[in-house]
Amino acid sequence: MSLLDGIRDPRDLDALTHEQLTDLAAEIRTFLVENVARTGGHLGPNLGVVELTIALHRVFASPADPIIFDTGHQSYVHKLLTGRQDFSALRARGGLAGYPQRSESPHDVVESSHASSSLSWADGVSRAFSRTGRSDRHVVAVVGDGALTGGMTWEALNNITDDNDRNLVIVVNDNGRSYAPTIGGMARHLNRVRTTETYRDLSQKSSRIAGRFGAVGRALYRGVRGGTHGFLSRFTNNSALYSNLDVKYLGPVDGHDLPALIETLELAKSYGAPVIVHVITEKGRGYQPALDDEADQFHAVGRIDPVTGGALGASAPGWTDVFAEELVRIGEKRDDVIAMTAAMLRPTGLAPFAERFPDRVYDVGIAEQHAVTSAAGLAYGGLHPVVALYSTFVNRAFDQVLMDVALHQAGVTFVLDRSGVTGPDGPSHHGMWDLALLHIVPRIRIAAPRDETRLREELQEAVAVRDAPTVVRFPKGAVGEDIPTLERLQDGVDVLARGDAEDVLIVGIGPFARLGLDVASRLRAQGIGATVVDPRWVVPVPASIVELAARHRLVITLEDGIRVGGIGTRVRQVLREAGIDTAVDELGLPDEFLDHASREQILEDAGLTPAKIAQDVVAQVLGTRVPVARRDNGRGLPAVTGEFTLRSTGH
Amino acid sequence: MSLLDGIRDPRDLDALTHEQLTDLAAEIRTFLVENVARTGGHLGPNLGVVELTIALHRVFASPADPIIFDTGHQSYVHKLLTGRQDFSALRARGGLAGYPQRSESPHDVVESSHASSSLSWADGVSRAFSRTGRSDRHVVAVVGDGALTGGMTWEALNNITDDNDRNLVIVVNDNGRSYAPTIGGMARHLNRVRTTETYRDLSQKSSRIAGRFGAVGRALYRGVRGGTHGFLSRFTNNSALYSNLDVKYLGPVDGHDLPALIETLELAKSYGAPVIVHVITEKGRGYQPALDDEADQFHAVGRIDPVTGGALGASAPGWTDVFAEELVRIGEKRDDVIAMTAAMLRPTGLAPFAERFPDRVYDVGIAEQHAVTSAAGLAYGGLHPVVALYSTFVNRAFDQVLMDVALHQAGVTFVLDRSGVTGPDGPSHHGMWDLALLHIVPRIRIAAPRDETRLREELQEAVAVRDAPTVVRFPKGAVGEDIPTLERLQDGVDVLARGDAEDVLIVGIGPFARLGLDVASRLRAQGIGATVVDPRWVVPVPASIVELAARHRLVITLEDGIRVGGIGTRVRQVLREAGIDTAVDELGLPDEFLDHASREQILEDAGLTPAKIAQDVVAQVLGTRVPVARRDNGRGLPAVTGEFTLRSTGH
Repeated sequence: MSLLDGIRDPRDLDALTHEQLTDLAAEIRTFLVENVARTGGHLGPNLGVVELTIALHRVFASPADPIIFDTGHQSYVHKLLTGRQDFSALRARGGLAGYPQRSESPHDVVESSHASSSLSWADGVSRAFSRTGRSDRHVVAVVGDGALTGGMTWEALNNITDDNDRNLVIVVNDNGRSYAPTIGGMARHLNRVRTTETYRDLSQKSSRIAGRFGAVGRALYRGVRGGTHGFLSRFTNNSALYSNLDVKYLGPVDGHDLPALIETLELAKSYGAPVIVHVITEKGRGYQPALDDEADQFHAVGRIDPVTGGALGASAPGWTDVFAEELVRIGEKRDDVIAMTAAMLRPTGLAPFAERFPDRVYDVGIAEQHAVTSAAGLAYGGLHPVVALYSTFVNRAFDQVLMDVALHQAGVTFVLDRSGVTGPDGPSHHGMWDLALLHIVPRIRIAAPRDETRLREELQEAVAVRDAPTVVRFPKGAVGEDIPTLERLQDGVDVLARGDAEDVLIVGIGPFARLGLDVASRLRAQGIGATVVDPRWVVPVPASIVELAARHRLVITLEDGIRVGGIGTRVRQVLREAGIDTAVDELGLPDEFLDHASREQILEDAGLTPAKIAQDVVAQVLGTRVPVARRDNGRGLPAVTGEFTLRSTGH
Repeated sequence: MSLLDGIRDPRDLDALTHEQLTDLAAEIRTFLVENVARTGGHLGPNLGVVELTIALHRVFASPADPIIFDTGHQSYVHKLLTGRQDFSALRARGGLAGYPQRSESPHDVVESSHASSSLSWADGVSRAFSRTGRSDRHVVAVVGDGALTGGMTWEALNNITDDNDRNLVIVVNDNGRSYAPTIGGMARHLNRVRTTETYRDLSQKSSRIAGRFGAVGRALYRGVRGGTHGFLSRFTNNSALYSNLDVKYLGPVDGHDLPALIETLELAKSYGAPVIVHVITEKGRGYQPALDDEADQFHAVGRIDPVTGGALGASAPGWTDVFAEELVRIGEKRDDVIAMTAAMLRPTGLAPFAERFPDRVYDVGIAEQHAVTSAAGLAYGGLHPVVALYSTFVNRAFDQVLMDVALHQAGVTFVLDRSGVTGPDGPSHHGMWDLALLHIVPRIRIAAPRDETRLREELQEAVAVRDAPTVVRFPKGAVGEDIPTLERLQDGVDVLARGDAEDVLIVGIGPFARLGLDVASRLRAQGIGATVVDPRWVVPVPASIVELAARHRLVITLEDGIRVGGIGTRVRQVLREAGIDTAVDELGLPDEFLDHASREQILEDAGLTPAKIAQDVVAQVLGTRVPVARRDNGRGLPAVTGEFTLRSTGH
């Protein structure tokens, strides 16, 4: 039996010697490579925190001492040590989530994968413990160096230091890269710490030094609350980053030296006040293919060959690739166009632009709020920023889009990748709020391309707008074949299909244009005529959608976003304003958080399949002879009360 | 002629001697007290920055050198020096805005009053200048110490220090209080600086010391880029706050000593890289009633007696007062209820709670993101936080409400004051997005009380919810008389009025219940029967709203929020789901930014008056005999195609 097999609960670690723990770490690395190679997942980050996670569970008593992972993609080792060793269906329906998930285990606290929140969580939980007679408990936040570039951590630290009477341990997992090399002055500071003689010395001799912590170290440390000096200054003299905020600081510690980690965490545990432990780790540790991957050390992989690290299965060209290429083209023509990203240069497709125009890309770190407002400033200064984000992360900067960009009529283009259902990364990665969220920003214009050609076109149109925020949003994955235009209407709306009769108007938004076509085929087979349109720009709602709706007897809007407050409601509102009371069915994602599963599974659950939608339309027709009303609002439209009649069912 | 009369443009300052500038400062203070006493406005903050603003305009060449005010309520002096001296209609329609406004002057850059954004703006503008051959220009950000508690400033500084080759001056206007005493470790640090011997010494002798800056100082300073020592360490040895980020630091400087300010700003101007100038000012300076107001130094006042500072006109009990009182009552019964605020303890009505339960209030500084996530942590720890914010500022924390509170099923209550149209503070203070923004958060429950009794009730109901975010939102101002309930339906919906016939269902949300009643009276006079309901909890949409809608021929929803994506769309969506196709008119605020004016003027412009709404309903009826459709969805509702007929018009 392997050591790992014997670990069913973190307390099983207590019986192991330091040597056995080191062997366990090796077993876990092998396990991770073998398993993640089969399923895909976050490999590099987890390989980097094997010893750290073992040490955390050895020293602290989870779940009484909650361990809060910031951006929990590095929680695989934590899962292994807390009774979850079946990784066969990782990130698939029925299998383990790729992030902590409370429904899996009481050891999991924070499920969201949005960075920089862990210190605020820890602040709240530890305050609650203090207030409710549980001040013996420790709260541990594990936060990456990248996440420290997010402003929330500053807000939290500012508060944590205001209330020193609690057991709060902040472990900075510093691998010098979040998704990519960490950005900014803070990163430079950490880098100095990492590369100083002191740390290199420490790293080589860390076991010995950790040994010196022991009883003497602890006593000394208790003596220096309020300041560090003497022996401990070795660990702090390079580390003034937080000293102004009165947070005590231990480290840097070699994150792959188990005895040193355990000793340091014990010291932190005994401290009785908020303390930062600075741990230096190596992303991808122990797995050569990851270490060789300069760009991101196998941050997240698909299925790979575990030996070579080579990707299995060809990957089709994706939406991101098309955007990447088109932005370079635009950059060639327009030297006022510059690109911005929040620590995701490669994932958002900006790498080719950065190669071509190295001085025209700003990576601001994990700092969406700053990215957006800084973009407003760049626009004021005459440039046109293209801010490339994952859809889910624009949620972080709503106020800045509203107040800094839109209110100030700044020409800023937001490119939102991975919008809609993304699949295996679970509820906090779905880009399902962007449409409902952003269409309430006055002046904004939102495009949802349906295919490669439209993405290129709409991106060009977006950067041509100089006085308002523009959004181009597209999903994760392969872009697929183009969907030809039957007719482009004057206001840019594309008609994709027409039926024999104008019964149902299907407004297919973005990638759901294809879904709309599939629905139309099924309706046609039932003798129902459907017109399918891609509005291209969904906000403001194009006038021709209103005109078309007036001629049809039912409108179906299809959006890859939450249906409450979504674009469908906007279409309906515009129809009502125009005096068109054609019934509108707004189809979209349900008003709930969507667990990890494949995109197909999630869409099927949401009823967003051609069969289900067509069936509902037919049922409406068959069941009740839906009355459809249209009223004259004085603009010359005839007042008609029509009734929907089934032309032919084939049944 | 006064000196102030002679200032039509900032360059007019160049001709004045230091003595004349000091006289000008005195004139400006007199002007501010006299004028703001008549109109109301932000008095304390502007009295504090008189010398600073004069010095800024003397040293920098606005608008070529943009001066960006963070939270521009301290821009009155700036307005006076840039050709805007008619304060007679300050904050009223047609008069000057209370914040910078680009349409007023090219000297105004950032209009939003949301704190902590100025460094990001300055980062963007200065980068644009560098990229476009205008690197001779300076960009100045003026930021309060309170705003530095916001995480955006950390994100911005982290980026500013990453690109040192630009003229960027950050003036920290440190009065030790934002709206109230500034919170947290950062504030403690500034306080240490402010109270050290060095600063007190400097303050007394600042003219002399500033004189010593001169040529030698400048030369020295240029010599120490990359570190401070020798002569300049006097000014920096207490000031390590930002040193880790490599931002250079000058100060602290006495913000009321014009020659010292001018010399220091000249030094900063000549520096050629980002630099922080730490200026110590006194809020309410020179006006004894303000200085005597310990709570907030007349941060914002209504009309006052300029001599005594006493308020003119009695103020009726407000929504805030009711909340304040009820929360204390709840606190007496539930010791798990704790209160949180983001630097607005008094404005949000938490002062009585803080007095009664001093250890149960957390003021986190201007840090809404942290407040919300920390609240999720407190809820995880078994407490029930009540987070009291102005409605407009919850926009800052959408992602945290969604990901940290709702996803984690945390029982956190958000109390949003000043929701809807607020009036004189302009576009960035209207709380008009909260409903449209928050109802797309799965699991959330939103209450909009119509009066005092309902506010108390709904607050109690909100804190009873343990597993989801709850929101209680109410407007600014006087709460007025209670609006009696005619009948409370089983699901808590209040029927406020019934007509002779069930023609129109009016759903009056929150304070618009009264508007609904007024509309109903007018309809009654025209022979149209209207039922008026207050749903109390607007999300999820109560079932009885659906049932009532099915019996009526037209539904009008009235909300004090942006109508696109608003609650009206949600009501309509729920009706459609239930197979009810009664026509719905969603009335609310237009999809645009609303300039400063009185609440009444803004609502009138938006057509939200009883006369206008009633007229539109009647016109619909008279004009076209609106067809109203209802279909059977298999739940037993009869399929009816009704036609709206006018019962009696009186015409």
